Amino acid sequence: MRRGAFAVPPGIYLDGNSLGLMPLVTRDLLERRLGEWSHEAALGWESWFGLAESLSPSIARLVGAGAHEVVATGSITSNLHSLLATLYRPEGEKRTVVATALDFPTDLYALRAWTDRLGGTLRLVPSRDGHTLHGDDLRAAMTPDVALVLLPTVLYRSGQRLDIPGLTAAAHAAGAVIGWDAAHSIGAMPHALHDSGADFAVWCHYKYVNAGPGAPGGLYLHERWHHLTPGLPGWWGNDKTTQFEMTTGYRKAPGAGAYQTGTPSILALTALQGALGIFDGLNLAEVRERSLALTDHLIAQVDRHTPELQVVTPRSHDERGGHVSLAHPEARELSRALRTLGVVPDYREPDILRLAPVALYNTEAEIDEVVRLLRTLLDSGEHRRTLTPASPVT
Amino acid sequence: MRRGAFAVPPGIYLDGNSLGLMPLVTRDLLERRLGEWSHEAALGWESWFGLAESLSPSIARLVGAGAHEVVATGSITSNLHSLLATLYRPEGEKRTVVATALDFPTDLYALRAWTDRLGGTLRLVPSRDGHTLHGDDLRAAMTPDVALVLLPTVLYRSGQRLDIPGLTAAAHAAGAVIGWDAAHSIGAMPHALHDSGADFAVWCHYKYVNAGPGAPGGLYLHERWHHLTPGLPGWWGNDKTTQFEMTTGYRKAPGAGAYQTGTPSILALTALQGALGIFDGLNLAEVRERSLALTDHLIAQVDRHTPELQVVTPRSHDERGGHVSLAHPEARELSRALRTLGVVPDYREPDILRLAPVALYNTEAEIDEVVRLLRTLLDSGEHRRTLTPASPVT
Repeated sequence: MRRGAFAVPPGIYLDGNSLGLMPLVTRDLLERRLGEWSHEAALGWESWFGLAESLSPSIARLVGAGAHEVVATGSITSNLHSLLATLYRPEGEKRTVVATALDFPTDLYALRAWTDRLGGTLRLVPSRDGHTLHGDDLRAAMTPDVALVLLPTVLYRSGQRLDIPGLTAAAHAAGAVIGWDAAHSIGAMPHALHDSGADFAVWCHYKYVNAGPGAPGGLYLHERWHHLTPGLPGWWGNDKTTQFEMTTGYRKAPGAGAYQTGTPSILALTALQGALGIFDGLNLAEVRERSLALTDHLIAQVDRHTPELQVVTPRSHDERGGHVSLAHPEARELSRALRTLGVVPDYREPDILRLAPVALYNTEAEIDEVVRLLRTLLDSGEHRRTLTPASPVT
Repeated sequence: MRRGAFAVPPGIYLDGNSLGLMPLVTRDLLERRLGEWSHEAALGWESWFGLAESLSPSIARLVGAGAHEVVATGSITSNLHSLLATLYRPEGEKRTVVATALDFPTDLYALRAWTDRLGGTLRLVPSRDGHTLHGDDLRAAMTPDVALVLLPTVLYRSGQRLDIPGLTAAAHAAGAVIGWDAAHSIGAMPHALHDSGADFAVWCHYKYVNAGPGAPGGLYLHERWHHLTPGLPGWWGNDKTTQFEMTTGYRKAPGAGAYQTGTPSILALTALQGALGIFDGLNLAEVRERSLALTDHLIAQVDRHTPELQVVTPRSHDERGGHVSLAHPEARELSRALRTLGVVPDYREPDILRLAPVALYNTEAEIDEVVRLLRTLLDSGEHRRTLTPASPVT
């Protein structure tokens, strides 16, 4: 939809669910920012001071929330710690936290730190098939002793999409607070976090949002919680109008901006600014439509040409995110072999090949070529002889 | 000492204690990084994965620690939260935290969050003169009920430098853990954090280290504490060799690197990389010597030409950081007027003009010109008629 707006590397890139491509505008924006640092130095803060807040309307549109309910800050992990420090308040018997065995590990590290600290229990909903979660199991885990639930909007390995409104309602019916890790859905589909009633969410901006390696994260906090004082406060979350009075008392900013902590990286926020500008001009329903068309095409091609690769991503549109996961005992070797052929897929232990045809810059022709290469590899066995080392990709 | 290595803005810049100037190499390094993102996308992680750790030797040199005792990550506030979550363990009657009424506010916000959470008390050592702290008062506050002490190495308003080895020994004699906020000393003078026995420290890299607005922060944790599990863990602090196995169990990295949380901004770390390269080639004792020569010169010029500006920074070299603070009832107006004359000073509520002649790029001639302009303003009263708005500067 916007391929011309990106620096598209040579070969075929199907790893935008790990690191999105660089928007061409980002280089110009960063150059302008370096010019400000060069020529204005500290006076540059006159324009940088509200930079994070200036991005909130664009971010709010991506997640379906009010601009006052979101802010670009921290990382998924640090934002999760901030929100858990604020919203996880075990009382009496109500102290269990529900997550899942298929969550991205850092979410579990954060949750366990807080259940350990405050005397709670972390309950992990298991998977029946090793790849996906069953709605019945998730709902059954939401017993009256549950204080907080954290779920992924889209599972990072299988690409399964969960039912945000339904599971949010179930958590609320159990009297629990519910948060969402939207890392694998933001930028790939519309959201309605506020209308769903979700209490909070965290995400990164370096996947489908294309804000660069290790870009600032984001968080959403429903306005019903804006009266709370952040549990891990910092001066950048102080009310902006009094921040520089430098008093010893913290006066929180009125909305989600209160969850900022230290001075944000202006260079990193600038790359986010460039990336968000592309989405400002897009209809998110059309982004989702294009994403589904691409993943439909990929699944159909795999079914037809490489049926030995098992599609573990749910086939229903409602239950699918932006990437397709293929299970195969030689997934690691296939991933390495594809790289030597100029294709960048993504591999996840122990047997998952993840392919993300991204709405904004991938094409059907690229998908066809990758499936053709996979067929050739499977026929020749050439991938079993490839010895390039695996690389770390987030 | 290295003026030619920086983008020096027009006019006279004496605000390097707020935001250091841009090293010229930074632009080239960032351009290279954008090239990697453009051409390699996710494969760029093969070179970015250990970027933070690769900077540790340079950072360790700045603070006087082992490379395994430091890491570039987070911000002062978030690092403080991580370290307090780990090291602040109130037990029985021993639960008081000592800090000072002159601390930078965000440190107090973080401390109070943890004393409130864990049932401790925050004891703020007062100032006798409103500008500086008295060693006797600091030591007297370290009673047996104190669990943790946090002090600034150099006070952000007055520029007073505290005695790190002496106060660290006093805290340890009281059975307390002690940490230091080194924001206003790193890059301006040598440190010996490890040899002093200090337990932990936090700092930013955007002042004297010149890593750019909102650059990643840094932390030091004495190796005696490396057996502890971080209180706010994240996947980037997992042991690097097993991070991508994506298991649900956290296995901390062996040193201070365990205090990383989420994926770091590679763009922000790149600017830090450029800035640290300059220090790699410098003798830190010579940096300090040059800094003291400049501040001595500034104080002498103020004493001679503008004696109505009260030097509130201690005059002893041992008790002075890298900037000089001048108290005057019209400090705000003088600061604004200097800006209209092309000078960038720094103002802090309610009556402090901060001037930082930085060893790496400022000169005696600049100091002479600024004092001359101050004399002219004080004589003419012109600053009382200046109406440019104050700008936020961190």
